[in-house]
Amino acid sequence: MQIYKPNVQDMLFQLEAFGYDRVCALEPFAAFDPDTAKMLLEQGAALAADVMLPTNRSGDQEGLKWDPKTGDVTTPSGFKEVYAKMVESGFVGLHAPPEYGGGGAPLSIATFFSEMQIAGNKSLSMCPGLTAGIIEALCDHGSDDLKQTYLPKLATGQWSGTMCLTEPQCGTDLGLVRTKAVPFDDHYKLTGTKIWITFGDHDLTENIVHLVLARLPDAPAGIKGISTFVVPKITLDGRRNPVKCTGLEHKMGIHASPTCVIDLEDAEGWLVGEPHRGMRAMFTMMNTARLQVGVEGIALGDIAYQTALAYAKDRRQSRSLDPSKREADQPADNILVHPDVRRMLLNIKATNEGMRGLATWVSTLIDLSLEHPDETVREHCDDLVQLLTPVVKGYCTERGFLNTSEAMQVCGGAGYTTDWSIEQYVRDARIAMIYEGTNHIQALDLVGRKLVRHGGRFFQGFAKEVGELVAAASEHAQVKPLAEQLAAALGKLTDVSMAMGGKAMTDPEEAGAAASNYLNVFGLVAIGYSWVRQATHAVQTQGPQTASKLKTANYFFAMILPEMDSLIGIIGAGKEHMMAFEVDEL
Amino acid sequence: MQIYKPNVQDMLFQLEAFGYDRVCALEPFAAFDPDTAKMLLEQGAALAADVMLPTNRSGDQEGLKWDPKTGDVTTPSGFKEVYAKMVESGFVGLHAPPEYGGGGAPLSIATFFSEMQIAGNKSLSMCPGLTAGIIEALCDHGSDDLKQTYLPKLATGQWSGTMCLTEPQCGTDLGLVRTKAVPFDDHYKLTGTKIWITFGDHDLTENIVHLVLARLPDAPAGIKGISTFVVPKITLDGRRNPVKCTGLEHKMGIHASPTCVIDLEDAEGWLVGEPHRGMRAMFTMMNTARLQVGVEGIALGDIAYQTALAYAKDRRQSRSLDPSKREADQPADNILVHPDVRRMLLNIKATNEGMRGLATWVSTLIDLSLEHPDETVREHCDDLVQLLTPVVKGYCTERGFLNTSEAMQVCGGAGYTTDWSIEQYVRDARIAMIYEGTNHIQALDLVGRKLVRHGGRFFQGFAKEVGELVAAASEHAQVKPLAEQLAAALGKLTDVSMAMGGKAMTDPEEAGAAASNYLNVFGLVAIGYSWVRQATHAVQTQGPQTASKLKTANYFFAMILPEMDSLIGIIGAGKEHMMAFEVDEL
Repeated sequence: MQIYKPNVQDMLFQLEAFGYDRVCALEPFAAFDPDTAKMLLEQGAALAADVMLPTNRSGDQEGLKWDPKTGDVTTPSGFKEVYAKMVESGFVGLHAPPEYGGGGAPLSIATFFSEMQIAGNKSLSMCPGLTAGIIEALCDHGSDDLKQTYLPKLATGQWSGTMCLTEPQCGTDLGLVRTKAVPFDDHYKLTGTKIWITFGDHDLTENIVHLVLARLPDAPAGIKGISTFVVPKITLDGRRNPVKCTGLEHKMGIHASPTCVIDLEDAEGWLVGEPHRGMRAMFTMMNTARLQVGVEGIALGDIAYQTALAYAKDRRQSRSLDPSKREADQPADNILVHPDVRRMLLNIKATNEGMRGLATWVSTLIDLSLEHPDETVREHCDDLVQLLTPVVKGYCTERGFLNTSEAMQVCGGAGYTTDWSIEQYVRDARIAMIYEGTNHIQALDLVGRKLVRHGGRFFQGFAKEVGELVAAASEHAQVKPLAEQLAAALGKLTDVSMAMGGKAMTDPEEAGAAASNYLNVFGLVAIGYSWVRQATHAVQTQGPQTASKLKTANYFFAMILPEMDSLIGIIGAGKEHMMAFEVDEL
Repeated sequence: MQIYKPNVQDMLFQLEAFGYDRVCALEPFAAFDPDTAKMLLEQGAALAADVMLPTNRSGDQEGLKWDPKTGDVTTPSGFKEVYAKMVESGFVGLHAPPEYGGGGAPLSIATFFSEMQIAGNKSLSMCPGLTAGIIEALCDHGSDDLKQTYLPKLATGQWSGTMCLTEPQCGTDLGLVRTKAVPFDDHYKLTGTKIWITFGDHDLTENIVHLVLARLPDAPAGIKGISTFVVPKITLDGRRNPVKCTGLEHKMGIHASPTCVIDLEDAEGWLVGEPHRGMRAMFTMMNTARLQVGVEGIALGDIAYQTALAYAKDRRQSRSLDPSKREADQPADNILVHPDVRRMLLNIKATNEGMRGLATWVSTLIDLSLEHPDETVREHCDDLVQLLTPVVKGYCTERGFLNTSEAMQVCGGAGYTTDWSIEQYVRDARIAMIYEGTNHIQALDLVGRKLVRHGGRFFQGFAKEVGELVAAASEHAQVKPLAEQLAAALGKLTDVSMAMGGKAMTDPEEAGAAASNYLNVFGLVAIGYSWVRQATHAVQTQGPQTASKLKTANYFFAMILPEMDSLIGIIGAGKEHMMAFEVDEL
């Protein structure tokens, strides 16, 4: 059984709360007024729940087929038909540029489409997810020729894309890439082995376009010698390019998403951007890709929550601890009378709606950072995006995984069976802590780069936003106590950040030791911001969600935010205790 | 690939540190001197690693077969042969009474056998695990006739046992049991449906003995109308009893452990103990069964740790943040230079060795509580067992699950694949938080029963133990700072416990709201106790483990124990925020 109804009402609330009015006031997004956004989200919800969800569990159980002779990968029954409907809907390239046939929608809306599609069918959602990445890379770095050739097919979803970065000897450390690219005519021939290639081969589209990191013959060693190439599975004149899937990984989850070993043997490729500057194309995509992976935690946390809540509403077991709540005419009381069942559900709800708000904020900031006419605004928004992206990726994926596990606990033994599918969400959610840069890589990015760049300007921009919100929120009596707690939390975060920023310069190892815990402290404060903003909006608008939003915001501040105190204590212990061990003492 | 070498050296250290000398001084355990214990543990280690481990992953992947016509369950290839070797080794009934052919070993040793067998093959280990439970129930509550009939076959492992408690409408709340038992000749005929029956059918033994909860015709409603029966699959005169597996659950993990739906249709059963007093037999087994489930967290945390450590020792990626540690002649540094990799590994090591010490302590306390000649000692030890059992079950299973996930993170993408098997340990570990009483049931047992019984005597007994240890440990300069931190932690725990004990009487709902977090605070302090005791022993004995033990103890106090502070803050927020919600606001 799979239960999922995308929470469009909350998505619309988040758009309002996090300043979507500023986004749809931008010229490129003029067509996406709030009414249109609502209509689109409802259509996207139907696509996710009615079209994608029905093959989610069957896809997990059936898995993939791989033909060792041809290298061809076959997706589970029904995937081809579902993908065709996704293409037909026009939503595969919702965020892609309209000049190439894309939908031209702001990321603020496209991010919700991602959330719904991941919840509806995580494995299948990864195919258009990767395509979005290559579209972004080609838009920013490709020649006009490459754009004209590839973007129209990619933007409609007729073709799909991949990212070929990792090799057996390098995942985190891309400076170790060995794949070679040798000039040939007006293009190149590439040879090497890539691993972890999501949708590296499949039967959903007529062509697959690989974005491949490789080294030119004269490339300097390390990360500054990496170039990026486009390598189509079928060349434009219809030949089968020697780029082949030579194996599939067997994984804990995302069983219907092919994770391929890809061998290139003199495969024809075309350079994207300048030689040796390939990492630039990667960094371009990184913010949206990492935001998208953070959203995976939200999506799977939400479907797991909805499942657990449906189970809890139906299940009777034991008696209320409060005699006045007992239903004497029933053999047992509904489990929602038990405070611990509520605690588990609310732990999910309070973090997940908080994270959805945070992801919405970052999405609108990305839209503004790219399209706002005022350069000062663009820069300020980009500062915040740079700072918050690793936080969203790291915090939301870890909490999302824990949330799926918490949802399982609500259902007891039933939650551990495949009947309720929560176990699939737990397995599918776990990978998001690892790929697109492990969560510790996010933490190092936050501490080692984002915190210190431009003399701490990014953090100052964030603190300014928090300060302004605290001031505005304090005018509402119901929100003021939360605003005060947020201000106090910001104070603690600022103290730790100063210490971390200093460490990043003087003792990087100590900063590295504390980075993962620091990222989680930052995540908690950022979600505190998200909740004060939501609570303020709830009070200002007095809609049907107002009461629940205020209660959930209060729950977050009382029951979740205090987690930061222990983390700060642990950060204070420094690196000493972990570096004290000889290897043979581990 | 599966990597596992049971940590016999640490087990022997734990036995020494937690007073095994008092156990083997008891008359029934005179044969189990420390040298014998060592020999047994080494033999058990070989059984787990060389005999059981080789079918662990294959069993997970192959799974079980069930014949709908006969109800027969077939275990994965090799299981029958491995189980036969386990029987042959004589270790299946290691802890069973020698008068029925059991090994008569103290639980202190048997618990390590459990740990090794769970790590070696969790699914398979559950078969003898359940048998141990029914042996205990029959020993304590069965008639001589029942004992003579069943125990010799069970103690050798020739027959296996099950626990048939749960029904579709009741898991946690056994008062709702509906299975009926009608008198027939000198015994009874039972009819009903039981679910979640571990090893309810299988092909490993020639007979299966079910311990079944049911209601006699004149039974009062609720928990005080439950009786316990023995229902063999094959009756003693060789007939097939109508007790049949009518289905298998499909689960996230423990794929090779059959979780059966068992239908009884006029199945012949024999009463164990007195009518309507069946829950007594269950409570008898509960301490050892819950200790055993807690040990699952330790076992799977350990094998996951060993796997992650082996991976980390081999893997090179990126450069040390400390230039002096860089290996210029290598393309990258070994990942153990990165503080965060050490942090993840040490989070596991520090909690897991701490939990192993705690489980060892509770095992020796059970041995002493049953066999010590002095009633005062027996009572004091039993007090501690009553108090600490829910803590071990709840804390060790939750931490064990998180530890398997942390081990996966060390391995990055490789950890998510089946190649390294950590993903299996994550899946296999998750169930332990649910069965044998969900972790919240443990928390309610701790707060609602154990904390308040006899005017708080159990807690006072624990506080006394901590106080004595603090005094003894403070004589060693290297341990004194930790002892002081333990004393401070006990002070905080005492404050919270007083408040919780009061709430349990006056506002049970508020106590229920805080119980799960409270259990984790207690777990942290109990492991703090475990570490101070280990550190003291390490200093006193100055053996090869001394340096590592002291460093790990320090790591625990600096990097893990502070988790209690946030939990205490959250407990202080009470029930208000979770009870505020109307059901339709969730």
